[in-house]
Amino acid sequence: MTRMTPFKELISYEEALERIRKSIKPIDRTESVSIENALDRVLAKEIVANMSVPPFDRAAMDGYAVKAKETFGASSFKPKTLKLTEILHAGASSNIVLGKGECVQVATGSPIPEGADAVVMVEFTERNGNDVKILKPVYPRANISPKGEDIEEGKVVIKVGEQLFPARIGALAALGTEKVEVYEKPRIAVVPTGTEIKEVGSSLKEGQIYDVNSYTLSSIINKNGAVPIKCKAVPDTTDELRNATKTLLKHDMIVFSGGSSVGERDLLMSVIQEFGTVVFHGIQVKPGKPTLFALVAGKPICGMPGYPTSCLLNAYLLLVPAIRQMATLPPKIEKTMKARLAKRVVSSTGRKQFLTVKIKRNLAYPVFKQSGAITSMTEADGYIVLPINVDVVERNQEVTVFLFD
Amino acid sequence: MTRMTPFKELISYEEALERIRKSIKPIDRTESVSIENALDRVLAKEIVANMSVPPFDRAAMDGYAVKAKETFGASSFKPKTLKLTEILHAGASSNIVLGKGECVQVATGSPIPEGADAVVMVEFTERNGNDVKILKPVYPRANISPKGEDIEEGKVVIKVGEQLFPARIGALAALGTEKVEVYEKPRIAVVPTGTEIKEVGSSLKEGQIYDVNSYTLSSIINKNGAVPIKCKAVPDTTDELRNATKTLLKHDMIVFSGGSSVGERDLLMSVIQEFGTVVFHGIQVKPGKPTLFALVAGKPICGMPGYPTSCLLNAYLLLVPAIRQMATLPPKIEKTMKARLAKRVVSSTGRKQFLTVKIKRNLAYPVFKQSGAITSMTEADGYIVLPINVDVVERNQEVTVFLFD
Repeated sequence: MTRMTPFKELISYEEALERIRKSIKPIDRTESVSIENALDRVLAKEIVANMSVPPFDRAAMDGYAVKAKETFGASSFKPKTLKLTEILHAGASSNIVLGKGECVQVATGSPIPEGADAVVMVEFTERNGNDVKILKPVYPRANISPKGEDIEEGKVVIKVGEQLFPARIGALAALGTEKVEVYEKPRIAVVPTGTEIKEVGSSLKEGQIYDVNSYTLSSIINKNGAVPIKCKAVPDTTDELRNATKTLLKHDMIVFSGGSSVGERDLLMSVIQEFGTVVFHGIQVKPGKPTLFALVAGKPICGMPGYPTSCLLNAYLLLVPAIRQMATLPPKIEKTMKARLAKRVVSSTGRKQFLTVKIKRNLAYPVFKQSGAITSMTEADGYIVLPINVDVVERNQEVTVFLFD
Repeated sequence: MTRMTPFKELISYEEALERIRKSIKPIDRTESVSIENALDRVLAKEIVANMSVPPFDRAAMDGYAVKAKETFGASSFKPKTLKLTEILHAGASSNIVLGKGECVQVATGSPIPEGADAVVMVEFTERNGNDVKILKPVYPRANISPKGEDIEEGKVVIKVGEQLFPARIGALAALGTEKVEVYEKPRIAVVPTGTEIKEVGSSLKEGQIYDVNSYTLSSIINKNGAVPIKCKAVPDTTDELRNATKTLLKHDMIVFSGGSSVGERDLLMSVIQEFGTVVFHGIQVKPGKPTLFALVAGKPICGMPGYPTSCLLNAYLLLVPAIRQMATLPPKIEKTMKARLAKRVVSSTGRKQFLTVKIKRNLAYPVFKQSGAITSMTEADGYIVLPINVDVVERNQEVTVFLFD
């Protein structure tokens, strides 16, 4: 018969984060991916430039390639006239050699012909047939992007651990890189517990409900650089939980949902104590007090609350930092906004409270119903945080809203 | 021979955004996707609850289901004793009927047996064999989540146009929904122009460079709810541009890169004027002045600058709002942070300037080299904005950094 005992030791949210930080080992397995598929991945092998970018001296402006010294003294009153010998488009090969008194028309990106050392911008010229009047002098190297100006051959362009955001994908392309070595995404087993939990798609009998947490957890895992492995529901018995834990330890992390509340937590706890160590169980937050975090054979095991809102909010608060650390991703940058509270809220004392709110015309309306209610979250735009020592926040007070993402 | 004329009319960034807003028509094609694949998609057909959630009255706490009136007057000094007749786990079917003086042990989520109308929390009980002492009275319906408390059958749960973030995927799961109707993602043709542009994977001849913009633009498009269609480079001739435009109009938008600068812009301009209308060409921003936006047969055509940094920054500034509107997505929420400028910067007058910066110990270091340099972007963490009327920002001044994402 299930023993039912209340919680003993609760730790602060900050302490929970710190214990997670110390427990997580980033994945060091790597894989090779094409740069088309490398967006947002984390580089595992530094990128050294195998060529210069640009690969040749090129025009930085539309205009005329000239010998700079032949433009010295030019002005709109007293232009210097050069003979146009050629038009060089971007992409054209530059087998042209610029002679004395000559110029070549170039477009931005064209290679600079041999013998030229500057480009006069088109705005400072006047053309008449093949005569080009130069209205302003240029100094040597003016309006030329020299070879290697952007990236020097042999230089490190992207370091290990850097995330491949769009600009870095662009730098890889500039170097002609086809494939890069990135860290593998952590594989996270998502396991609902309880015999009442049924798969979406099956029909419900009296007393049964659909699995919600696997879907919300998988979504969060997907959005934070990891791969969710959705598993079948496990009944809340010591044997079943033990078997599931053993089988699923081949993945990088196991996230159970449900079964960590008072009624059932002893089961998962006792299984974990057989094999590993409990890092924490019980946090001074609302909703979500019963969250369990443990290590078994070096692998993190999370026991999330079964209530959908508690489970999801605790996933944002605790699971996201754990997953990102495992994926070598930088901490998530929260999107926040300021709003005024539309009505007074009262907090339970002794716990940091996370309160879901909806934003309307810059007012934050609390939408929390109860921790079982998924609609507390679907209607919310984000949440506000009430510190442990705050009991009441008055209407109209300015609050920071952390927006869901 | 290419005509080379400077820009005529430049509009403000705000005016450019407003013209884009008025020009874009959201995609109204829809598709059916499984809820596993619906994350971040936009709902095209409202979700009406086809069942109640919870689907039955259930225990909101671990404890004992009782007849509330039988607990009236109970206290720790004078407990009421009830007979435990059954243990009801979550998921168990409730064919039990509670008799007078009886109680049933329930776990959070268990159905409430017939005849019971409240749950006493385990914390306020003492058990001795099958005798359960009730130490505190409960009112009727206490600690029970009634059927439909979260979602009422027949109610609209998610509206058309709402984005399916994790909590909403959870609500779909709670209702047993397998598939949802969402808007199709806009299909955006990405076309580099210029004969000097070569595919990553090919080898370069003198004067040639690798295609960078297709990769950065595709990344941005992917990250903002649309599908990039990477196309082969098109040579900068009126005929080739005309053919490409005609062929690619089957997609929802065409984004050319390169070819909108002074030297070549007239080509794309003249092609567009044959078929459609120019919405704007030339913006008072730096980098990126030459960006072109047009409508041909109702479809938006963008001409992005060829320089990688200009192209990418203009994609963040102009393309992202256009794509998101087309995808019925809310405007992107910028991630920002405050930092102090590590050194004085001077702005060009008459243009709103976007300056890439790197953050180190809360100082913002300008990393801009020149608009051709992709490393201006790979090293940057974000950018700061210098308004048109600001010429100089002093060292140590506080600035808002818009972080790349």
